[in-house]
Amino acid sequence: MSVNLIGSGNLATHIGITLNNNGLKINYVWSRNLENAKILAEKIKTTYTDNFTEIYNNKAIYLICVPDSEIKSIAKKINSENSILIHTSASTNISVLEKFSTNCGVFYPLQTFSKNSKLVNFKNLPVFIEYSNNNVKNILKYLCDIINAKLIIANSEKRLLIHIAAIFANNFTNHMISISNEIAGSNKIDFELFKPLIIETLDKITKINSIDIQTGPSVRNDKNTIKKHLKALKKYKDFAKIYSFVSKNIQKMHSKL
Amino acid sequence: MSVNLIGSGNLATHIGITLNNNGLKINYVWSRNLENAKILAEKIKTTYTDNFTEIYNNKAIYLICVPDSEIKSIAKKINSENSILIHTSASTNISVLEKFSTNCGVFYPLQTFSKNSKLVNFKNLPVFIEYSNNNVKNILKYLCDIINAKLIIANSEKRLLIHIAAIFANNFTNHMISISNEIAGSNKIDFELFKPLIIETLDKITKINSIDIQTGPSVRNDKNTIKKHLKALKKYKDFAKIYSFVSKNIQKMHSKL
Repeated sequence: MSVNLIGSGNLATHIGITLNNNGLKINYVWSRNLENAKILAEKIKTTYTDNFTEIYNNKAIYLICVPDSEIKSIAKKINSENSILIHTSASTNISVLEKFSTNCGVFYPLQTFSKNSKLVNFKNLPVFIEYSNNNVKNILKYLCDIINAKLIIANSEKRLLIHIAAIFANNFTNHMISISNEIAGSNKIDFELFKPLIIETLDKITKINSIDIQTGPSVRNDKNTIKKHLKALKKYKDFAKIYSFVSKNIQKMHSKL
Repeated sequence: MSVNLIGSGNLATHIGITLNNNGLKINYVWSRNLENAKILAEKIKTTYTDNFTEIYNNKAIYLICVPDSEIKSIAKKINSENSILIHTSASTNISVLEKFSTNCGVFYPLQTFSKNSKLVNFKNLPVFIEYSNNNVKNILKYLCDIINAKLIIANSEKRLLIHIAAIFANNFTNHMISISNEIAGSNKIDFELFKPLIIETLDKITKINSIDIQTGPSVRNDKNTIKKHLKALKKYKDFAKIYSFVSKNIQKMHSKL
């Protein structure tokens, strides 16, 4: 059965290239941005389009990798009766597809994808799946198998919580570094100097339970230092707010241990 | 001139062992906890005490590695007139020592130290120094040189901001991972599954500017998903607060780019 890749963004790029590298022929790349569709299609040596009527098949697997807000309108456009709809969204309920097809599923790889970074290694990467029937389950299992991903079954409710935990682990850790960078930069402190600290922090996080390795004034409940810091953050109102909240939460979490 | 190490905590342990490994003889380890003083003294083959009168010297370098709140009372106890007082605190003004000695300085290594983790590598590690006179400056330079650290001069005000940036980069990133772990754990999701995501996140953070690699619903300003997440976080009031604040700050920072 042919596979149509819907989307040309971060995930579509990584999953498309990985499937292609593992011998799966992608029939079409569709994107509302034709230029992006072309760039990805050339990478995986296939055809591309921005026109849905062109990819109408009797039966195809549609791997939908578009922003959450567009999944519904995309599903509506597909010849759903004969096709299998699979979305890749963490926080979209499978029910959004069930309105359009009895054959639908979810394929959510727990990873962060950027177009311009090196190809994500799917080997042993957890992929959370959900499906409307065993036929779709087998297709999802096949997709996981050929890319050596680790298949895990999870319903929409659980997937939502996994996504939230992933946002803290990825987007929010990343933003803490951005804030650090901003404070350093606006005070003419070379952020390169923070690299050994960041590398040591990250090395520990991956090896030791983060709760056990917390250091700093918050976990020591060093009120005097925290007060000094909040005063020094006066001109960074939002950062002061985040400092205060996160700091209190560190104290709370550790006082319960 | 002899060096007395004051403290037996995380930093005292790492700096004491590193100085000793590089041929500097530590004369005494002092700690108010005699058992901890003994453990560290045995590691660096020297004497230990919990009694200040025992370590009174005509002239010694006191490397003070104690919690910020104790620096003043420790400095008070030292025979300051003939000695050199050096504290290692990020957020303590050098003026705290200046009350007790005309020879004082600060030696602040920008790193996170835990007693039970592998020995921190001081090679090229930034050490921010401050000093009351050139004699102390030369001593601080000597200490940096023998451990191959990277000496950088910074006054107390700048050091305070460096510490705040370090807290975001270290304590707060670490806490975001703890929150992620807590959400996963309390929903029976194996946190081991998040390891590839964390490793990828951290790998990017050290190589690419964190502001350029932000992903997720906040940076996309995907209000619908954020709303779903805040609803799902209902029973985690504090986490919801942090989610909401950090999320808004991500949008704000990126809308300015």
